[in-house]
Amino acid sequence: MEKVIIAQKFSLFHEHWSPKIVGELNDSYVKLAKLKGEFIWHRHEMEDELFLVVKGELLIKLRDRDIQLREGELVIIPRGVEHLPTAGEETHVLLLEPKSTVNTGNVQDKRTVGDQWI
Amino acid sequence: MEKVIIAQKFSLFHEHWSPKIVGELNDSYVKLAKLKGEFIWHRHEMEDELFLVVKGELLIKLRDRDIQLREGELVIIPRGVEHLPTAGEETHVLLLEPKSTVNTGNVQDKRTVGDQWI
Repeated sequence: MEKVIIAQKFSLFHEHWSPKIVGELNDSYVKLAKLKGEFIWHRHEMEDELFLVVKGELLIKLRDRDIQLREGELVIIPRGVEHLPTAGEETHVLLLEPKSTVNTGNVQDKRTVGDQWI
Repeated sequence: MEKVIIAQKFSLFHEHWSPKIVGELNDSYVKLAKLKGEFIWHRHEMEDELFLVVKGELLIKLRDRDIQLREGELVIIPRGVEHLPTAGEETHVLLLEPKSTVNTGNVQDKRTVGDQWI
């Protein structure tokens, strides 16, 4: 039960699109990720996913519209909804999602990563 | 699936110790709360609870030690652990906890509140 200093955790890694676990509660993980560029279209069949922008700007493309998030803004993408996260400049986000969540959802991709704690 | 602008949501209420729901995912709620002064000792029997400080400072007293949180810091209080949140000055926090969570946990108090969306 140690506190998490978010900025300190972000200093520990540099990869983009590779979420790091910093906490767990109620069968979910709290993750931090650095995003830059365009990810891939995917959906999570059984998991709702929260994105909170800590630094920078995140554009989440949906099939019918876009959601633009700035620092201090969050959105919850419900299970089953296809989305494409995109960041022009490096953006830092906090994610909350069930432990079963795979970063690339229903798509197996070279950027699919496993669970990594920091 | 609308984004939540955290600062805008905080402008909508002024009460202390009365969390407001701003989102739901995976059987949990995302809540915002303004805290000032001392709450009451309580525990949540079945729910882990996340506190993220958005503004100000939060002292969470445990029976064996204290956890001091500043802006940009979070902690997860596991189920069953007694805690006493305290804030000298008004502090803004984001909470994440199962929908079943009651703010005063195992204690029925005049500050026990029900679910309120904003």
